[in-house]
Parts: sequence; C-alpha cells; structure tokens
Amino acid sequence: MSQDPTPRLTTLPNGLRIVTRQMPGLHSAALGIWVSAGGRNERADQNGIAHFLEHMAFKGTATRSALQIAEAIEDVGGYINAYTSRDATAYYVRVLEDDVDLAFDVISDIVLNPVFDDREIEVERGVILQEIGQAMDTPDDIIFDWLQEAAYPDQPIGRTILGPAERVSSFGRSDLAGFVSENYGPGQMVVAAAGSVDHDRIVRLAEKVLGHIAPRPQGAREGARWQGLETRTVKPLEQAHFALALEGPGYLAPDFYAAQIFSSALGGGMSSRLFQKIREERGLCYTIFAQSGFHDDTGMLTIYAGTGAEDLGDLATLTIDEIKRATEDMSEAEIARAKAQLRAGLLMGLESPSGQAERMARSLAIWGRVPDAAEVAERIAAVTAADVRTHAERLLATARPALALYGPVEGAPTLQALSERLAA
Amino acid sequence: MSQDPTPRLTTLPNGLRIVTRQMPGLHSAALGIWVSAGGRNERADQNGIAHFLEHMAFKGTATRSALQIAEAIEDVGGYINAYTSRDATAYYVRVLEDDVDLAFDVISDIVLNPVFDDREIEVERGVILQEIGQAMDTPDDIIFDWLQEAAYPDQPIGRTILGPAERVSSFGRSDLAGFVSENYGPGQMVVAAAGSVDHDRIVRLAEKVLGHIAPRPQGAREGARWQGLETRTVKPLEQAHFALALEGPGYLAPDFYAAQIFSSALGGGMSSRLFQKIREERGLCYTIFAQSGFHDDTGMLTIYAGTGAEDLGDLATLTIDEIKRATEDMSEAEIARAKAQLRAGLLMGLESPSGQAERMARSLAIWGRVPDAAEVAERIAAVTAADVRTHAERLLATARPALALYGPVEGAPTLQALSERLAA
Repeated sequence: MSQDPTPRLTTLPNGLRIVTRQMPGLHSAALGIWVSAGGRNERADQNGIAHFLEHMAFKGTATRSALQIAEAIEDVGGYINAYTSRDATAYYVRVLEDDVDLAFDVISDIVLNPVFDDREIEVERGVILQEIGQAMDTPDDIIFDWLQEAAYPDQPIGRTILGPAERVSSFGRSDLAGFVSENYGPGQMVVAAAGSVDHDRIVRLAEKVLGHIAPRPQGAREGARWQGLETRTVKPLEQAHFALALEGPGYLAPDFYAAQIFSSALGGGMSSRLFQKIREERGLCYTIFAQSGFHDDTGMLTIYAGTGAEDLGDLATLTIDEIKRATEDMSEAEIARAKAQLRAGLLMGLESPSGQAERMARSLAIWGRVPDAAEVAERIAAVTAADVRTHAERLLATARPALALYGPVEGAPTLQALSERLAA
Repeated sequence: MSQDPTPRLTTLPNGLRIVTRQMPGLHSAALGIWVSAGGRNERADQNGIAHFLEHMAFKGTATRSALQIAEAIEDVGGYINAYTSRDATAYYVRVLEDDVDLAFDVISDIVLNPVFDDREIEVERGVILQEIGQAMDTPDDIIFDWLQEAAYPDQPIGRTILGPAERVSSFGRSDLAGFVSENYGPGQMVVAAAGSVDHDRIVRLAEKVLGHIAPRPQGAREGARWQGLETRTVKPLEQAHFALALEGPGYLAPDFYAAQIFSSALGGGMSSRLFQKIREERGLCYTIFAQSGFHDDTGMLTIYAGTGAEDLGDLATLTIDEIKRATEDMSEAEIARAKAQLRAGLLMGLESPSGQAERMARSLAIWGRVPDAAEVAERIAAVTAADVRTHAERLLATARPALALYGPVEGAPTLQALSERLAA
C-alpha cells in the first residue's frame, strides 16, 4: 500500500472541509464539492428539488452562462458532471493537472452562485420530465426507486430522487433558493480532490472563495422506518424484473463490513451463490446480483434479477432459498473470497482519482474522518465467520422484505408468500 | 507524457502477438486475450455463434469447471469478464500485481480449452435468450443494433451480436468447435497487459501455453456495403428513442481523426451543438449525443436521443439542421475544443490499466502497431479546420442516413423526409 499517502484534511473556521490525496505518477485530477443534502433533506412538498437544483447549477451563474460553464471545462478537455442521491449532491470535474485551479473556480461558482433564471427553469423542467421518461424506460434502474419506496413508504428516504412529474412541474425559483439556504451551509460541504493535486493550494483557493460563507444549522433528517411493502407495475416488457430487499445495517453499525462480505458471497460475483445456482445451474437469467447499500441509520441488502414471465416464480423462490441457506452454512472459503474481493476493490480503487475523491468525501460525511486503506483492510480482515453469521441472523430477524416487480409480473408470487418462505 | 513508456511488443513464430505496458506506480494489472473474430466473421447461418462461444468459454475447460474458473479469479479478489463485438472477442481480467501469472493461466485456459459440454450448452442457451430479452428492455442499447442493421442490411457487419433467438436455439457443440477452428488462430490473437506487469515474464508464459498452436489462415471478411434504410419498432414506451447514422470513414482512412473532432463538436459534450440547441435551449431531451464508430473499411457517425412522442418531429428536424449547419460553419474555437477533449481523453486513458490493455490490443489488430500517446497527440494536433470541413462534406456526400426508431414512434418523420431535408 505504498501508493496510499495519508489523505490531508483541513477544516476552515466556518466548518467547510477540504480533503485531498496526492497520487504519485498521475498527471490528471478529480475535484468536486460534495454537499450533504439530497433526497432525505426534502419535505414531501419539496420532493425532487435537490435534483432540480443540481440541474440548475449548470444553467448559469452570476458571471457565466450555461454555455460558458460547459466551454470553460471542455476547452481544456475536461469533463464536468453532477449527481444527486438520498444523502448528498455532488458536483465534480476531471481535468489534466494544469487545469486544477480552473476546475475549482468553475465548480465553486456553480455551487455558490447559480442564478435560477426563470426562462432557464422552464427549459430545465422539460429536461427533467424527459429524464423521468428515460428512467421509466430503464427497468433495471427505476425498479430500485420503487423498491426504496416499498421499503420506506411515506418518508424522505423512500421518495424518488427525480420527484414526481407533478412536483417537478411546479417548482420555481423560490423553491430552489429555499432549499439552498436550508441545506447548502459550509458545514455541509466537502471539497475533495485526488490525483495530481497540491493540498495547500486547494486550501488557499477554498479559503478565498468559500471561507466567507456564514455557517448555518442543517435541518434534522427524519429517521428511517423500514416497512417492507410490495409494489408491482404490470407492463408488456420482455423480461419480468424482480428486486427484493432486506433491512441491513447503516454505515455506523458494527456489522458494516460483515454486511458487505455477506452480500458479496451471496450475489457479488460469478462465484457467488445466486449466480451459480440461478444463472449457471439453471440458466434462468442473464443478470442476477446482490449488493449492500448504506445510509447513516439504515441500510439494505438488495437482490435484482431479470427473467422470463414464466420463470419468475422459480427464480423468486430459489432466491429466497439461497438467502436462507446463506444465513445457515456460509463457508470459511466463501468468506475468505468475499474478503479478498473487498480488499482488492479497495486497493484498485486507490488507483482511480475519481474513485478516491468520492471515497474521501463520503467518508468525511459519514464518519467525520477518512480511514486510510490499511485501516480499512484491517477491519475487513478482522471480520470472522461468526460475525457474518450474526449479521445474517439479524437480517432475517428484522421486518419482512420489500419487493418490487416490473414487467409481465401478473403471476408473480406475493410478498406474503415469499416472506413466509423466508421465515419458514 | 512522462507516464508513457513505449509499449513493448513481441511476436511469436506462430504469429501470436504480446503487447504490454508497464505503468509505474500501479499495483494492479489488466490482462486479456483479444481475438480478431466477432460478428463480422459469422456466416448468416452462424449469426450469434461468436457471442455464444464467448459465453461457453466460462462454462468449463479440460481442467476447470465453471465454478472453478470463477473461484480461481475471485479467490484473489480479481474480476473476469468478456465481450463480443463485430470485430473481436475479448477475454480479460483485472487483478492485483501478485496475481498476474494466475490471471494469464485462467484466461489462456478458457480461450484455448473450452469443453462445450452438452448440458452446459443447454443451460447457457437459456442465459443468452434471457440476455436478448434484457437487451429488448434497454431501448437505448438495442436501438443501436437496429441502426446497424438498417445501415448494413443482410451483411455480417449489420447483424446483431446476440443473434436471433431461433439461431441461438439451434447452436450445438459442432457449431462452436467449427467457429473456433475457423477463427481462433494464433495470428488472430493478441495478449495485452498493462499496469504492474513484466513484459518478458508474460512473453515466457505465452510461449509456453500459446506458442505451440499451429497458424491457420483466417477466412476473408465480407466488405461493408452501406445502404441506409429505416427501421421503426412501435411499442408503448415512455420515450420515443431516435438514432440516426451517416456513413463515415474507417480506422484506416485519412479523416479518422477529423471524424472524431467533427462528432465531438457536433454532439460530444455539454458544449456541443446538439446538446446546446436541443437540450439546453429547447429542453426536448435529457440524453442526446453524437459519436464516431469505426471498423477497418467503414465507420459511422451516430446520433442518439430520447424524447416524448409529441416532440420527436421537432427533435428529428432540429438534429438534421444541426448536422447541416455543423458541416458549414464549424468554428476554429469548436475545433480547438474538440481537439483538447480528444487529447485529454487520451492522456487520462493512459492512467487506466484496463483502458490501456484495450487500446493496445485494438491498435495492433487495426494498424499492426501501437502508436504511442505522443504520436497520437501529434496527429490530433495536425488536423486543420479545412480537414474537418472536407470530412463533413464527405459525410453529406455519401449515401443517405440510416434511421432507427423505437417506442411511440408512429408519427415520426420518415427517413425519406429527413434525407431530403439533409440534402436540401
């Protein structure tokens, strides 16, 4: 792990944090601003505003038009983008090393100084309505939104990021400005950079541009309450899309690493149980996987597969049976393999500037610090088979699963039936 | 470009080539075998066999079961995968540096020694039929297959990679073995590795395992004949998916770089004409882009967008108008920006082992050599505005466009109407 110089962290007096990691040998850099404000910070009447705001950041600032923003970065061959999740909104750039100052200037400008021009709001509303249409035409994407809603109904964490079309159609300038003033305080922002970057230089840039913003309290987030419902959307698609979730631990829970090991062994790769049993032995699907997702106070073990309408029943019951079996007889060899996969993923991730900037920003937001790779590798290594078993028992002991179905799913088993099979 | 030690190339007596690039500072590696055999090497009655073979490589060799193949790589935290294109089939692994020998052993085993067990063929047939279903549920993926078919009807280059379900249902062991013996000769194979790798060591491994394969002639490929037809598939999707193509140059043509500059300025980024006019000014779509694709003897400028059924007519005619305008008044600033984007993409790509292994293998297959980054950067820099204009005129002078439509597209403009508008 000689390639892991400890990340450097500076906190400005107003609470804004700057974290960087110099990666020797690289001649490019990734840089961004991560704001701890996403779907979970929205009230019901605001659903979709965090994402709408992310779009508007690119539509003009006090000194740059939308075209000038794009040109500033693309003139030097860079790449600029953003995303909104339940927990955060991220604005980031990838550039060659000579253009890091420029990248910081543009990213900080779009986050701090968007103008919310009324005409641009109207146009962008159309773009977002198209984005909602595109999501509907991507079954293996939208199904995860529905699964989230079924797991946490009527809560900020359960609502979609894009928001319902009716809300998107009604947002205006004051809604955007209101969300910024409630959620975009310096204590909620992390500047993260990795690659060919100089920490002190980025700190100076951040002090100049972001140091003067007054701290403000961030509104409390509503705690997650897992429910475990079922949602089924019948449509004449080619495949029946199936997504199932169990409540798992959050980032802060002691079984955070055990959860990742369990999901990896269950459905993380080609040697995993779900892949072997359902695809390799039975040929019932092309895609099947399990993954762990985390928030601070809750998390999810998610399984997804796409199959033919006539095979959905088999696939669903086989999946339930594999989850059960995995909680009972996970072998030392499977656990060792899952640990090797987590460790290698961590080490390979150290070689990507974008991945590093993202990991550091998220670590800060979650734990208030950035564990170095050696520490994370030790924590992974320390997980025992007993820890994985304890985690698995906890998974089964919680509330019933959430289920989302999309496509020719009229004849799919009910959540009730699957829950009973899992509990039997 | 200090990070670009010239790639090292060795050709074995039987014609097999080994190309590697040591990337200082990295502790992982990407390694694979690229075979110059894909959809273009299939006769009509073989359509889908190259891809079926790629799947069967993972289903067992003389000494490893499917599970053992997956476990061998995943036990050390590695990642193994493959893809089939019209021109090639690639089998590749990403591992930490200590596991490069193992990675070579597994990859060469699955390429050389697949057993084509009858039961495994039956199971995998089901998997591929599911993969076809999944592709149909991914409109912004399948539409490019249909576009290719409309551009080059009734030719190997125009057929889909997955093949039609009827053919996939009929393939057996002798079809697979036949395709291997016709197309998997050592002269058609490149071993490519990048990252923390030692050239001489990989050459020794390759000599031992691949050095004894007897050379064999590769069957001639049918030359591409652009036609430019229209295909429209009506289905109740949320969006009308639109894809248009013009015939462009192949890899070997003098306007290879001019084509990339033109497509980048037309629709390659947020500052591009299509993005600005159609998304930023009009809000008619979320996704719109132009890209260049290449084969040795032909190529394509492709434009894709997804929009609402009621906006499809506007989007289509605006797109045609922007293509026309771009051929007439592309500015020096736009050309300079597109060149900066190509150059930066090249330099950033040097920092990714997977990207490097892929680039080297493809360069060898196409040009018989691997130009280093400095040479490519020079070629990009040398393109003039006049070169781009000449390229654009050639684009318009060729046969009419190909058009693919998917979704609620009953009311879409015809190819005839769009062609006339483009020619007007």
